[in-house]
Amino acid sequence: MGIISAIQQRLGGDAVITPGPAMDPYLSERRGLFAGRPARAVVRPADTGAVAAVMELAAAHGVGVVPRGGNTGLCGGAAAADHSDVVILSLERLNRIRRVDADNFTLTAEAGCLLSDLQAAAAESGRLFPLSYAAENDCQIGGNLATNAGGMNVLRYGNARDLALGLEVVLADGRIWDGLRSLRKDNSGYDLKDLFIGAEGTLGIITAVTLKLFPPVRERATAIVGLDSAEAAVSLFGRLRADSGDTITSCELMGREPLSLAITHTPDCHEPLAASYPWYLLVDLTSSATGAGLAQRLEQALSGAMRGMGDYRIAADPAMAADFWRLRNSIPGAQKGAGASIKNDVSVPVADIPAFIDAASSAVIDACPGVRPCPFGHIGDGNIHFNLTRPTAMTDAAFLAQWAPLTRRVHDIAMAYAGSFAAEHGVGQLKPQEVARLKSPVEQDLMRRLKTALDPDDRLNPGKVVPPADGPPSAG
Amino acid sequence: MGIISAIQQRLGGDAVITPGPAMDPYLSERRGLFAGRPARAVVRPADTGAVAAVMELAAAHGVGVVPRGGNTGLCGGAAAADHSDVVILSLERLNRIRRVDADNFTLTAEAGCLLSDLQAAAAESGRLFPLSYAAENDCQIGGNLATNAGGMNVLRYGNARDLALGLEVVLADGRIWDGLRSLRKDNSGYDLKDLFIGAEGTLGIITAVTLKLFPPVRERATAIVGLDSAEAAVSLFGRLRADSGDTITSCELMGREPLSLAITHTPDCHEPLAASYPWYLLVDLTSSATGAGLAQRLEQALSGAMRGMGDYRIAADPAMAADFWRLRNSIPGAQKGAGASIKNDVSVPVADIPAFIDAASSAVIDACPGVRPCPFGHIGDGNIHFNLTRPTAMTDAAFLAQWAPLTRRVHDIAMAYAGSFAAEHGVGQLKPQEVARLKSPVEQDLMRRLKTALDPDDRLNPGKVVPPADGPPSAG
Repeated sequence: MGIISAIQQRLGGDAVITPGPAMDPYLSERRGLFAGRPARAVVRPADTGAVAAVMELAAAHGVGVVPRGGNTGLCGGAAAADHSDVVILSLERLNRIRRVDADNFTLTAEAGCLLSDLQAAAAESGRLFPLSYAAENDCQIGGNLATNAGGMNVLRYGNARDLALGLEVVLADGRIWDGLRSLRKDNSGYDLKDLFIGAEGTLGIITAVTLKLFPPVRERATAIVGLDSAEAAVSLFGRLRADSGDTITSCELMGREPLSLAITHTPDCHEPLAASYPWYLLVDLTSSATGAGLAQRLEQALSGAMRGMGDYRIAADPAMAADFWRLRNSIPGAQKGAGASIKNDVSVPVADIPAFIDAASSAVIDACPGVRPCPFGHIGDGNIHFNLTRPTAMTDAAFLAQWAPLTRRVHDIAMAYAGSFAAEHGVGQLKPQEVARLKSPVEQDLMRRLKTALDPDDRLNPGKVVPPADGPPSAG
Repeated sequence: MGIISAIQQRLGGDAVITPGPAMDPYLSERRGLFAGRPARAVVRPADTGAVAAVMELAAAHGVGVVPRGGNTGLCGGAAAADHSDVVILSLERLNRIRRVDADNFTLTAEAGCLLSDLQAAAAESGRLFPLSYAAENDCQIGGNLATNAGGMNVLRYGNARDLALGLEVVLADGRIWDGLRSLRKDNSGYDLKDLFIGAEGTLGIITAVTLKLFPPVRERATAIVGLDSAEAAVSLFGRLRADSGDTITSCELMGREPLSLAITHTPDCHEPLAASYPWYLLVDLTSSATGAGLAQRLEQALSGAMRGMGDYRIAADPAMAADFWRLRNSIPGAQKGAGASIKNDVSVPVADIPAFIDAASSAVIDACPGVRPCPFGHIGDGNIHFNLTRPTAMTDAAFLAQWAPLTRRVHDIAMAYAGSFAAEHGVGQLKPQEVARLKSPVEQDLMRRLKTALDPDDRLNPGKVVPPADGPPSAG
């Protein structure tokens, strides 16, 4: 009996989709770089035991398994790799919220739950689940954890990793590790949980998680600040952290170029300050206390810190705050209006952001005259979306042909500042070659040892994250 | 040439201490349970390269290595295990602070730096390094990380793990992994850092770390609250988290029994409230903002939450706050005044603390009539020091003879509440048998696979943390 029949027998026929039109949506992939690659079948287990059964059968039949969440990833982690012989395992039916415990500030949910459903369940219990980003209505918490997703609130609440207290994981051989704890302190052995988080399904399949909750936000204050230099933005950020009592939830840096694109290409996006500045910060303070006086505190901190440099405006009401945020959130769409763009997902130490932006801008302009760097991103996380908009005189196709060399240049500069070439989107199948090119041999060896220890036959998401030991040193 | 001569040749003679009086201090161990066990030599490398050389030589000569920090651990992790043939590797000479970067809110230091020296270096740069506990003048940051130490500020700032952005680690074969990053976001591969943190030197030797810093505390408010039940304490904690804008830094629960011991046995410890209550909470709010109005906020939150139940007092000045804290900090010493005590380092989900204390108290009183449970600890972390003071009519020796059975009972009950039998002190050589008895076979197998992947010949801190595969299921 083949693996497909075996899975059908164990899970029931309706849990298996064989090649054909019904399978097509499961072969799509957001960027379209790896879309449509074939799989033997898509399996849709309904509970953890069924996931374990699939892994047992995959081991018995020597077939790889690609776990798939909400398909919002940007590195092809949930699509089959080239020439691989795999089953796609969709977690979408593991969508139960098992428990919300307000007194313990925790929520336990299955991997296939939509992020927005978890946010809503927490809110119903008078709590906040702070993970948040544009894809929150489509992405699943299992994928958020597998990729250690970040988002808008990392500065205050951390990445997905920091929000997970415990996991349930199905291992390569089909055993289930029940590490679904809700403890704040547990030093009773190795930290297994953090090994699976961010491993993109290559070490085990996360089937459930216990998450930290927080008191809900009851007060918010928003400001936009115009500044003469990125250095001034870094130092203002440090001062605001202190003076705001560390109530900063978001601190977004925007260059003038991306802000201009947003204003030009988006309805309802307007110049936020009387004059134009080379750099902008968008700052949100939040508190769970009522009467926290955040707007006043922000005014005091900004007037003290700025002393005549630049300019700022504090949102007088939620509508004005929404106007400020529309500028930031319109940047990715507005870039499309200006032609093709090349995206870089890099991070550097916060204090090195200005030097990194200078060096990377010079390098890409040198390599591609006329290119328009559009740096923006999460300054407090050192995570800059160093996006490049095509030169006005170049075609989209000619510009996109330079993706690999331009991206490599930006990665090299990020690494020179002890940064990362994969800050928040992960590695997937887009960047294993950069892992091979840019990580030390010791670190690659450690990664391979862990992969071999937990998935010796390479069944779990083959071709992702870990470069082959004998792979070419540079190709991506 | 033997290993000792080889190390002397590589590191210089003054880096090696051979058996004799000069070695004795390095064989001590705080609890005295494992003190004095012999070692071939104590080696004191002065830099990371020398640590790597020791590991290379240990591998070549087939000798185990026990890394040793400030020797303040409570589970014998830094002492030789029984019948082992080891070299003790003291990190004390790796004591340089490599860099403080205030703009990046980071500090990079070597493993042998004293915790209090790091706190001071951060303060000099206008920043806070929040890790803090009683042993801070003696313990070393490498040991803090190896044991994932907790302390008084976990509620707000997390355990040692949460404060580390990057590590430098010497591996079992003497290679150096340079993971000394200071990034807030990095999803470029497996999370190696967290594998070494909390592994108590069994997977690698941490030689340096980059730590997170925070804005300094500029305002503080302290209150002591008397309550009728532990349930009321849990629910007050949740309410205070929200109403204080999550500015709670400490929230300590104390039973009446330990408070009475502190008042009876310690000078300058006085009844804090007009009446006596079965339970007390000691609450600290802190903020880096000036004019945060914390005392007023605490008053408002407590008057709103209590509504006539129990009683509370907000410290009018720092001296009164110190009086309140003296009660809490005197408990361990005061327990000694009342005779021998048996300590349990357990955690449970926060909401289950009252039920756990009830069940554990009944169980130990049943097993040892007259025993006096003295529960106190970090309520927000679910980490209760469920200490047992001997019955007044029993000798210390007779009581201490019951350590193993009483501790096992308490561990069993913690596990029944999905808790931990090693919340913050780690496993060391005190509790590997409890790992064998209480962790699932799958989890033990995962731990062994990781140990084998990174230290196949069992050179790193042999006999610690991971129970032998064929060990007895119960002996500790």
